[in-house]
Amino acid sequence: MNVRTASSPIGLHRVVEPVGVLPQAADRLDPSPEIWPDEVRVRVERLNLDAASYRQLAAAHGGDGPAVRRAVLETVRRRGKMHNPVTGSGGMLVGVVDEVGPESPHRLPPLRLRPGERVATLVSLTLTPLAISDGLSGWDGLSEQVPAAGHAILFGRSIVARLPGDLQVPLALAVLDVCGAPALTARVVGWHLAAGELERNDRAPAVAVLGGAGKSGSLSLAAAREAGAGRLVGVVPNDAEAAALRAAGLAEEVVVADARDPVGLAAAVGDPVDVTVVCVDVPGCEGGAILATRSGGTVVFFSMATSFSAAALGAEGLAADVTMLVGNGYVPGHAEHALRLVRENAGVRGLFTSRLASEQGSRS
Amino acid sequence: MNVRTASSPIGLHRVVEPVGVLPQAADRLDPSPEIWPDEVRVRVERLNLDAASYRQLAAAHGGDGPAVRRAVLETVRRRGKMHNPVTGSGGMLVGVVDEVGPESPHRLPPLRLRPGERVATLVSLTLTPLAISDGLSGWDGLSEQVPAAGHAILFGRSIVARLPGDLQVPLALAVLDVCGAPALTARVVGWHLAAGELERNDRAPAVAVLGGAGKSGSLSLAAAREAGAGRLVGVVPNDAEAAALRAAGLAEEVVVADARDPVGLAAAVGDPVDVTVVCVDVPGCEGGAILATRSGGTVVFFSMATSFSAAALGAEGLAADVTMLVGNGYVPGHAEHALRLVRENAGVRGLFTSRLASEQGSRS
Repeated sequence: MNVRTASSPIGLHRVVEPVGVLPQAADRLDPSPEIWPDEVRVRVERLNLDAASYRQLAAAHGGDGPAVRRAVLETVRRRGKMHNPVTGSGGMLVGVVDEVGPESPHRLPPLRLRPGERVATLVSLTLTPLAISDGLSGWDGLSEQVPAAGHAILFGRSIVARLPGDLQVPLALAVLDVCGAPALTARVVGWHLAAGELERNDRAPAVAVLGGAGKSGSLSLAAAREAGAGRLVGVVPNDAEAAALRAAGLAEEVVVADARDPVGLAAAVGDPVDVTVVCVDVPGCEGGAILATRSGGTVVFFSMATSFSAAALGAEGLAADVTMLVGNGYVPGHAEHALRLVRENAGVRGLFTSRLASEQGSRS
Repeated sequence: MNVRTASSPIGLHRVVEPVGVLPQAADRLDPSPEIWPDEVRVRVERLNLDAASYRQLAAAHGGDGPAVRRAVLETVRRRGKMHNPVTGSGGMLVGVVDEVGPESPHRLPPLRLRPGERVATLVSLTLTPLAISDGLSGWDGLSEQVPAAGHAILFGRSIVARLPGDLQVPLALAVLDVCGAPALTARVVGWHLAAGELERNDRAPAVAVLGGAGKSGSLSLAAAREAGAGRLVGVVPNDAEAAALRAAGLAEEVVVADARDPVGLAAAVGDPVDVTVVCVDVPGCEGGAILATRSGGTVVFFSMATSFSAAALGAEGLAADVTMLVGNGYVPGHAEHALRLVRENAGVRGLFTSRLASEQGSRS
């Protein structure tokens, strides 16, 4: 009997230090390419750094692309995963399946994964064993999307999606990266609808999305409308984003406000809403989100720049009886839900493609 | 007309820098003793540092009491509030009302606050303007409870409770400090009960409390039982706490586990529970709490040592469909609820008094 049969579906066997913690909490993972029976090895094509992580790296290195690239390489080399030690966040990746272990659950329906198929990982890079083999030579360090060669490992319980054939890879990757947000937004709107029905009021829940013109924000607006939201407010930081969001037609009201300015934000939103969704990847948005939400309402924090203590103590300090959710990146069916929204909603698709084009343009 | 009439019920007028943020997010508040028309000034008698903050200070100074005292004094002097810059947390205080502004809502029912009454602040010290006048000379730096002289300011919307006459001040203060936890636990158990009734199952929600023998933990266990929980599991770090919790009779099952060890914790809890309440004030408990909770369940994080990104990415990495709540310290009626639990539940009262006695003893 081979010792390798003792792998764990959540990847405990790949944790190098400290021993016994989950891969996400680990300082260092073992990224060696030999797979255990329930694992899958993916040949990496592209990393998608999460927005908070990329923003931190770019700021720390003053926008110096080669320095950002060296920092990412050093993190992956040292930790065996792309886990930004400052923000605690990662991102996801796309690649081609190299080998599927004989005991991998991904062999089975509904996925039936086979070598040669292009997939995106829906678990964070913070817990995905990763090795880079090309020194990221195809990346200028100036964008979140990182062409890369190397390999990554999926555990038995790691979530993965086959890339759809009808969407370009960068678009599909960008959608899948944030697909937890629209799914959870839809669920929370559903809770408020059900509560309203119990109380026999006819008011559909009002929803505000901070960062409404962004990737997770535009998907969340579309998901909220589909789930039965009433008044929909998109909050954006400047006039250019306001114009883009108005053109996309995803919200009845589009307002310009700095989400870090609680009083200004609450004034811009106007009547407090039932659900506030925070999709802004800068620190300091907790107070404004709480202040913009009515008593009995819910704030969903998707931004990885959210501070737990600022949220907890901020609500207490405002005597705000709001339910605050940590935006869980996993909701069953989230990938299919988000891909469907992008396919069916021209407004969302337009915002994604113009954002991807400008990222591409800035890298020239 | 006096410029002083422009005060804000949430204290924006006391923010020195950066301008425009909420008091909790501010680097520095103005703690000057003159009150605005809607404010209350309190003569401070005692600070209660929150557990995560005190633990950090004690560790940073190697348990050197005078050094811890100097650090607290320096923070208050520099920031105009006791806001630990490392943990982001504070605590609360008790004192005697000195002056109630003519426009303070606390003059009105139900509180009808008057000078001379002893009160506890239920808003965090992280947003309470505070000045210390005695150099904390009565404190040895070796405990969370800090005898202190000075003054503090309450805003129009700051929550405050009159201290009950039938409980000793340190006991009442310790209860009020954590009173958000039992109130929110009761609410979440209620949600799961209602959801179970909708699904027509007869199963009362199973609840696990990490740190069940502690202050917020024991209150949360008592609140969960009263709210209709079924199986109740108290998780404690060692045999001494297990014996104390068993004697208190607050949980059917008392198990010893390190909450930072996800696999060990989940094994100790056994069948995944509907609701997990995290009351352990050490970092790294996110993964274990998620792993101990069934799909569709809820994790409530009360520990200020919780990492937002570890919770969000941990759930995603485990493909865990759990709802994760930021433990809001404010739920209407929370103070009365917690004080009633302590009065009516001898088990909770016993755990509190023995803990307070041992803290007292360690200061001799």
